[in-house]
Order: sequence, then structure tokens, then C-alpha cells
Amino acid sequence: MIAYHTSPSPCGERFEVLYRLFCSAGDLNIRAMDICIEQTVEFPADLLPPGDIPEKVVGRVEEQHNAPSGAYVRISYPIEAAGNDLVQLLNTVFGNTSLKPGVRVEKLLLPDSLVSRFRGPRFGVAGLRRRLDVPFRPLLCTAIKPLGLSASDLANQAYQCALGGIDIIKDDHGITDQSFAPFKERVERCAEAVRRANEQTGYRAIYMPSMGVSYDRLLELAHYAKQAGAGGLLVMPALTGFDSMRLLAGDDALGLPVMMHPAFLGGYLGGMESGISHYALFGQITRLAGADATIYPNYGGRFSFSKEECQEIVAGARDPMGCLAPIFPTPGGGMTLDRVPEMLELLGRDAIFLIGGGLHRQGQNLVEGSCFFRNLVEQM
Amino acid sequence: MIAYHTSPSPCGERFEVLYRLFCSAGDLNIRAMDICIEQTVEFPADLLPPGDIPEKVVGRVEEQHNAPSGAYVRISYPIEAAGNDLVQLLNTVFGNTSLKPGVRVEKLLLPDSLVSRFRGPRFGVAGLRRRLDVPFRPLLCTAIKPLGLSASDLANQAYQCALGGIDIIKDDHGITDQSFAPFKERVERCAEAVRRANEQTGYRAIYMPSMGVSYDRLLELAHYAKQAGAGGLLVMPALTGFDSMRLLAGDDALGLPVMMHPAFLGGYLGGMESGISHYALFGQITRLAGADATIYPNYGGRFSFSKEECQEIVAGARDPMGCLAPIFPTPGGGMTLDRVPEMLELLGRDAIFLIGGGLHRQGQNLVEGSCFFRNLVEQM
Repeated sequence: MIAYHTSPSPCGERFEVLYRLFCSAGDLNIRAMDICIEQTVEFPADLLPPGDIPEKVVGRVEEQHNAPSGAYVRISYPIEAAGNDLVQLLNTVFGNTSLKPGVRVEKLLLPDSLVSRFRGPRFGVAGLRRRLDVPFRPLLCTAIKPLGLSASDLANQAYQCALGGIDIIKDDHGITDQSFAPFKERVERCAEAVRRANEQTGYRAIYMPSMGVSYDRLLELAHYAKQAGAGGLLVMPALTGFDSMRLLAGDDALGLPVMMHPAFLGGYLGGMESGISHYALFGQITRLAGADATIYPNYGGRFSFSKEECQEIVAGARDPMGCLAPIFPTPGGGMTLDRVPEMLELLGRDAIFLIGGGLHRQGQNLVEGSCFFRNLVEQM
Repeated sequence: MIAYHTSPSPCGERFEVLYRLFCSAGDLNIRAMDICIEQTVEFPADLLPPGDIPEKVVGRVEEQHNAPSGAYVRISYPIEAAGNDLVQLLNTVFGNTSLKPGVRVEKLLLPDSLVSRFRGPRFGVAGLRRRLDVPFRPLLCTAIKPLGLSASDLANQAYQCALGGIDIIKDDHGITDQSFAPFKERVERCAEAVRRANEQTGYRAIYMPSMGVSYDRLLELAHYAKQAGAGGLLVMPALTGFDSMRLLAGDDALGLPVMMHPAFLGGYLGGMESGISHYALFGQITRLAGADATIYPNYGGRFSFSKEECQEIVAGARDPMGCLAPIFPTPGGGMTLDRVPEMLELLGRDAIFLIGGGLHRQGQNLVEGSCFFRNLVEQM
């Protein structure tokens, strides 16, 4: 063992992660200790220099218990291990352990002192309602699509949707900066179209471009979009990094609402016996990263999330979390107008209903379809 | 259906993705068509405007077949759908479909015209060998650790490892910018320590700091590291975004080798019936993103990858891929010196052997342990 002549900084407050383990009862202790080591020092425990490192830096098992649903272990880490940023917090929570089977992040248990290092959602439920001037009812959202249309065709769709009373008109997430409808041209045309519709309706609809662009162009294009009149940003953290969302949401010069889109995020869910829970991923982490709304594929649509998993997401979006505002659960992924009553009953009014392709099924034009959607929600 | 008055740009060449599907034979057609739609237009097929969009933009099933190992489908997409960047390429390959169970990306089949839009590895196997002046034998790598040590203690370790003949001395991936050993101080001390050792040995060892930092500080800190004498960068694409790796690897003013570290990447693997194959994730995508070496947890260590999965990674790192250089497979994750002969036999000499904690078990100091490691490899 090497003799170390200096001491590490003292470690103070800790945060905790609740993991679920899928292993035999006899392996529970050893699996829990493995996480404690793997997520911090990654070093043979018997070779650690005595003192603060084994006593304070290494993860610590705070509680473990067996429930009918599985084995749970609560492990604490020093806040210092997570540094001051989201990247290293996620690394401490699940970096190397994500590569091991049979362990799932269920919940982050963060003290206010750690949560308050994050700005979190700039708007949240209350702020986005004020911004859109929709104090009570659920918000309405749609996506302009399909990929392959020109910027002017997409802008025409955006215009019709805004005219019909949709609050948030976003790009289909796969429409980014392709030759069909280049980012700058599309954003200018769509933002202008929504502004023009707002002048006619008196509403405050916003257009949100998809920010699925390269690392070095993200900030530039976000500011371009803001200048062009975009009213928010659609961010795909699994593709551009969770911290890209924090950066965009926290940029005061932008000051725009942010929606999280889950493209490429599926891997993180990893099935029942690995990955990160819907609660933590779509709720807690998405809020830490500053999104004001969290899009998820609702049960009974084109995807396979269960009703219970969707309810977990709703709880993660709303549960108290230090100083962070609650955000809008935004069920989508193949929703249709006939699902609106059910969504309203389950989610209450603090939700965004995202209906994309389903809106195009409604009558001859998108203005009518959008009107129908809005009337449906307003009358409930 | 809306009447669209403009046509999309014509679509030319296509690229393909080989997916493996886990479903009944009767569902194969419908699942394959679902991917074609979901990954492009996300729109009801019967409502698409006639013409180029259904004919050229929508994904197309090129081949499907049942093998003993499962059902495979090869789907092509227009290159235009992926735009010109890695973010949108990954989105087209697996964005929304990643959220659906029972589908796994096995292999990317990219024409040279698409691959050549990516710079890929700046050094690759041959370039990194030249840079380190190691023409024949496998390269040696270790990690300075554990988290909690001061910058001067870590620099002392780096010095000893370089003196003992290790080629690449990297930060343990979890050591980023914590108060124990702040990034700038640590990088300065470690780079200086390795330089000092090189003066004594005549070797060309390099120090690679961990770039697990926030979005807005990544480039600044990478350039700081370069100025301070770092000889490469350790990047965790699942935490900072795959495109962050492309950006750092492709930055001519940096001009530094890049190693991919798989922290937080586990979710993408998603188990046997979802996620992305080891071949595509640790091999093809990592090369597209410009890494010169791909670290993976070797079988028989602390992790659970199988020997076959590790061999897939090796193939993905080396198989011909347009103009992209082959890169170094870098087995780690609990390797010890006694595994060296086996690794050499399996991997041949074009590999990097990463031994972290295992090196500390060897004798009284790290110089001796490192010497032993080097002699072991040189004598084989």
C-alpha cells in the first residue's frame, strides 16, 4: 500500500440512492458493498489508505430490506463525490454500475443542499401556465410532421394548429437540420407562422424547435431560435446529453421553456431488472436537468409503458423535490382525441396532452382538428 | 389529408441498420414496418402525402430472415434523414424505437459516402503507436485512484506509473472536478509528473484526464488540459453525449488521442432483447465518434460481459469501416496481471491492457508494479 502524506478534504453531508437488486438473498450484502465501492473509489477495499477515504468517501449501506417486490438497498455517498455538476452526479449514481446486471436505480434521495445547486425548471407548471396564459385547463401540444416536408409546409401546419388553439406546437423530434427543412429556415418560418396566428386569435401559442443538433452548434442554434421567435426548446437528453438540457434551460439570455423528449432514452430504462426507474429518469433527473415538461409514451399508444410506469412518471414530475418546481407530465406516443377523457381523469389538469398524428385524422384540415381538440378539453 | 404544394428534396443514397427482433414469426412484418415508420415520419402511413415521402423518406425493409439465433430485419433509411451529424444519425438508428421492447440494433451498415462525413479516430491504432513510440507490443494503461486522494497524491501515483513504464496513465473515470483534487490543479500536477518521469525514462507516456464535466466547460477544460501537458482525453459519452466525443476528438487545436470510457453506458446495452449490440456500441458508434481506444469491462473481471460479447467489441473496433481507422480494444474492469497472457492470446498485440486496482497489489510501490507489468508484456 502506498503511503499518502496528505488527507482528502473532509466530507460532510451525504445524499442517497435507493437501488433495487435482483439477486439471491445470500448475495445481497456482497452486491450492496460492490455498489458502494464501484460508484466511488473503484479500488480493492483492503488496499485503501486508512482514514477519510474508507470512512467517508466510499459509499455506505444505510439500509437494506427485502420486500415482496424485491430487495432494496439505500446507499449514501458524500456530496463532494458528485462534485458540482449533473454529469458527475449521474456518474456517482449509476456510472459503472449501469454495466452490471440485476441492479436498478429506483429513486434519488437528495438533501435540499444538493438539490439547490441545480436551478431546475425555470418555469415549471405555474410559470408555463402564466407564459401561455392558460391558468386552469390542461395544455395542448402537437407535433408538426412528417419528416420530409419542406419548411414552408411545416410552417403552414404550425399556423393551422396555432389558429385552431393548440398551445405548444413542436417539431417532430426527428426533424432537426435535414436538407428537407433546414433548421434556420424552418424555425424562422414556423415561429413567424405561430406569431401570425396569435395575432388573429389573441392566444399565446408557442413553437418549439427540436434541438437534436451537434454539440458545438447547440447553443448557437438555440439562440438563433430565440431570436427568430421560438417560444421554447425540445431537447433529447439521451442524444445530446442530460447536461445539454440543464445548459439550455438555465441560460438566462434564452429564458425559454424546455420540454424533454425521450428519443434514445429507452436504453436507460433497461427492462425490469436493470436501468433507471421511470420515476427517477422521467421525473427526478429530468427536473434536475431543468425541463418544464417531460414527454413520455403513454400506455395504450404505440409504445409499451404500463399504466403503473406512467403513474410513476407523473409522481416523479410532481413530488416535492427541494426547491425544484413541479413540471408537466406530457403523455404522447400515439395518443388520440378519444383518449383525452381518460388522460384527464388520471392526470388531472396539470398535464400537457400531446397529440401528433392523431390530430391529422380529424376532419379535413388541421385548424378544425385543433379546434376540436381544444373544445374537447375546455368542455371537460 | 392536407394538400402539400411543395416537394421534399429528392432522396438519394441510403444506409442500413440490421435489427434483431424478439417477437413471434407472425408479428415480424408488422414490427419491421413499425420501425420503418417510427424512425422516420412517425405518422400514420395512410395519411402520408403521396410521392417522395412514402417512397423515399420512410424506412424500407430490405431483407428479413429467421435464424436460429432470432429474427433479423435489415432496414434502409435515406442518408438525408440522418442529416449531417452524429446526433441525428443515432436518432434515426434507434431514437423512439429504443423505447420499445424486443428490438436490438445489431449492426450499422453505412456506405462510405456516409462514413466519410465523420472524421473518426484521429490516431487509431497506427497513429497512437507512433505517438507513444510503441511499434509492436500491446500498450499498457492504468488509472490513478482512488477518489478522495489529493491532486499531489494522484500526481505521485502518475509519476510512479510512468517511471515504471506504463504508456497511458488515466484518471479513474469518477475523478473529475471534485474538491478532493480539482480538475485544473490535478491535471497540471499529473501532466507535469508524467513529463518528469519521461525525462528520466526516455519513454513517451501520456496522462489522460477524465472529461466528466459539464457541457459548457468541456471544451474549455479540454484546452486547459492540453496546455497543461495532458497527452489525451478520457471521455464518457453516455454521460456527456456521444457528440462530445466527436467534438473533442475532431478538434484540431487539441489534436489529442481520445479513449472512450463506458460509464453510464450500460443502459444502452439493455440486456439481450433490447438496446444496442456490443459490436455497434463499443465498436462502430465509438469509432464514428472518433475514439482511438474503446474501454470495456472484460469477461472474468468485476463485470458480467461474456467472452463472446468482448470478442464482438474487438471485431467492432477492427472491422473495415470505410475510411475510419481501426482502434484499440481496451479490456479493463478488474483485470489483473495474471490475465495478461490470456488477453494477449485472445486479442493479439493491437490492444491496450488496462490494469487499475490490480497494479496496486503488486509489491510495495507502483514503480515496481508497473515495471513488472511492462516486463511481463515485453517478454511475451
